[in-house]
Amino acid sequence: MKPAALALLTDFGLQDAYVGMMKGVIAQIDPTLLVIDLTHQIPPQNLMAARFTLMAAVPYFPPDSVYVAVVDPGVGTARRAIAVEFGFSQNRPVGFLVGPDNGLFSGVLSQYSPLTAVELNNSRYWRTLAPSSTFHGRDIFASVGAYLARGVPLHDLGSTIDLDSLTTLPIPPCCYLQSDNETTIQGCIQAIDHFGNLITTIPGTDVINKQWAVVLDDLTLPGQQTYNDRAPGDWVALVGSHGWIEVAINQGNAQAQLGVDWGKAIKVVVRG
Amino acid sequence: MKPAALALLTDFGLQDAYVGMMKGVIAQIDPTLLVIDLTHQIPPQNLMAARFTLMAAVPYFPPDSVYVAVVDPGVGTARRAIAVEFGFSQNRPVGFLVGPDNGLFSGVLSQYSPLTAVELNNSRYWRTLAPSSTFHGRDIFASVGAYLARGVPLHDLGSTIDLDSLTTLPIPPCCYLQSDNETTIQGCIQAIDHFGNLITTIPGTDVINKQWAVVLDDLTLPGQQTYNDRAPGDWVALVGSHGWIEVAINQGNAQAQLGVDWGKAIKVVVRG
Amino acid sequence: MKPAALALLTDFGLQDAYVGMMKGVIAQIDPTLLVIDLTHQIPPQNLMAARFTLMAAVPYFPPDSVYVAVVDPGVGTARRAIAVEFGFSQNRPVGFLVGPDNGLFSGVLSQYSPLTAVELNNSRYWRTLAPSSTFHGRDIFASVGAYLARGVPLHDLGSTIDLDSLTTLPIPPCCYLQSDNETTIQGCIQAIDHFGNLITTIPGTDVINKQWAVVLDDLTLPGQQTYNDRAPGDWVALVGSHGWIEVAINQGNAQAQLGVDWGKAIKVVVRG
Repeated sequence: MKPAALALLTDFGLQDAYVGMMKGVIAQIDPTLLVIDLTHQIPPQNLMAARFTLMAAVPYFPPDSVYVAVVDPGVGTARRAIAVEFGFSQNRPVGFLVGPDNGLFSGVLSQYSPLTAVELNNSRYWRTLAPSSTFHGRDIFASVGAYLARGVPLHDLGSTIDLDSLTTLPIPPCCYLQSDNETTIQGCIQAIDHFGNLITTIPGTDVINKQWAVVLDDLTLPGQQTYNDRAPGDWVALVGSHGWIEVAINQGNAQAQLGVDWGKAIKVVVRG
Repeated sequence: MKPAALALLTDFGLQDAYVGMMKGVIAQIDPTLLVIDLTHQIPPQNLMAARFTLMAAVPYFPPDSVYVAVVDPGVGTARRAIAVEFGFSQNRPVGFLVGPDNGLFSGVLSQYSPLTAVELNNSRYWRTLAPSSTFHGRDIFASVGAYLARGVPLHDLGSTIDLDSLTTLPIPPCCYLQSDNETTIQGCIQAIDHFGNLITTIPGTDVINKQWAVVLDDLTLPGQQTYNDRAPGDWVALVGSHGWIEVAINQGNAQAQLGVDWGKAIKVVVRG
Repeated sequence: MKPAALALLTDFGLQDAYVGMMKGVIAQIDPTLLVIDLTHQIPPQNLMAARFTLMAAVPYFPPDSVYVAVVDPGVGTARRAIAVEFGFSQNRPVGFLVGPDNGLFSGVLSQYSPLTAVELNNSRYWRTLAPSSTFHGRDIFASVGAYLARGVPLHDLGSTIDLDSLTTLPIPPCCYLQSDNETTIQGCIQAIDHFGNLITTIPGTDVINKQWAVVLDDLTLPGQQTYNDRAPGDWVALVGSHGWIEVAINQGNAQAQLGVDWGKAIKVVVRG
């Protein structure tokens, strides 16, 4: 078994056989591959959720891992099927992304550099010469991902495409306002997790060793180290395990309490 | 690792340890087996859903794979525990089915021929000589499936049974009415997936290269190639990735919109 | 591949990348380990559910398996991170538990003896010298569990701690009242599964080969062998596949019908 993994992320859910079919296709190509589920419960067609979840997971995987991500509302249209090699600057690859060119890779590619990208037009690495027009996850992406994970070179998978042409999701960048002795950072909620924690677009590195507070509607929450710096049921602001500033309720569900949604504006005020 | 897979399908859900226990039993017999989850979220005791999901998955798996399927409302009664070798006509097996004889294999066996079937009465391949009367998934089927996947011959697992005696679910066959220049095919909804797409019993091969339309209550939907042949939010009829005619809403949920259920009658009209 | 498994149990759910991250960390340490999901759908922070589910699963796993269990409302506080070797009396270990010292292991340790326990203070086996204060599952437990599964001795992981100091959840022991010709056993509901079956704290071994009945509010249910000893829709009391006395509705959902919750008192009356 190779050290690399073949990681899967989809919005297919776990009640149908769609994910099982992808794994069947992979097993036919190479049953020794290490296949790891990131999640298959991205809300249907939610590219923002897919983008965040993939970006959050990549740093914890072995180098050279292949990430097959299929949240694909444009399946069967002219949207491109792509694979992208990414890494740090011009160094050796950290990993490979495989999926539709609809922006779901733009989170990973905001943290790492794209090195090479190809359009998946070499049908030799598809499952079939006549892929279904509604399920490229099974007929193109799972198959191509498995070949890539077992060592087929990226360039064999199709024609090289311009890195500048890759689709990006419109996430507003944080806005920094300086005054005499404080910085106000304007960001938004980019993800809401299973615990109802609200994950912002504001990086934790902006507040290291500083005094800071989150401002969210009427709430002003001084930054803490961990959930338990506040009593159970109390609001808490902290740098989450993913590295972003997060708003939570200790042992509670912030999203259910506040009824907010993705994209909601949020501010952090940093002293000193 | 062998090329074949041991695929699991149950209605046990993922919140309890039942599926984990089955995998523990398999690991005790052979930790090198490739175990793949088809789904564990079949609605409790829904044999129709289990039948369809298993039938849909099998074509994408390596030959000689073993499918352990446990949706088993009759556990502990006289219903037989069986294993069935299936394939194309009299040729070498395509795979093996292991589970209760209650009709959940009748979908796969409508697409492939049963070659040999045995009743699982050789307790040597059970986990224990005294299986629980409520959890044959753990004590018989997982154990027998693992032995089969590692090469124990089917005949060793128990007594041969008559192929004609296998239980079949009562799925009404499609009814074809010919008139001068069109065919009306009467079928029904045999599955509803995670996206709310309505999957009929009418095979896509009936409409290849023809003009056709679905009639469902007041809706008449001309056949399309892919979801995006219609605008987001619009109804669409197409041949799904599983090969059956399907009714969907592009980027929406047809089942939630229409409130229909499994078994609902549906018609396809084919011209020419 | 070793015969042992690395089994994972958390309350992280399957929609975020948290579980995937843990598997990425494990793959970086040893991609050949056999990783098995027990469940990731423990209700958030529900230690009672985690305790029962882990206790129920352990008997079906290979010896020397490692169980990484993370339901951790106290993450980032002074609660200890621990690993415990457990087995039968003073014999060789049956397995290893890794996780927070908050009582979630007290179910397993009511069935097996703790042999040795260590506090996980050797940071050499952590993923990072600066673990997140909110995600020890990724930064400590997954990493330590992987090293343990590949053979690092328990004593290398940290300082030995007193077995009597391990945290225990307050599950009331069953109470036995003898009269002339019957025994009344007072217990409670310790778990409710996906099917809505009510699992009590009363062991099935108390009623073997005896006449017995469950008393739950107005219901008196004579003990049966299997669900199908009663008609579909009828109440049934039996010894469940996990070995505890259970109350269910054949092909129905007892919990939904009765609206009871964990901890609810329940009685068994045994004759003879």
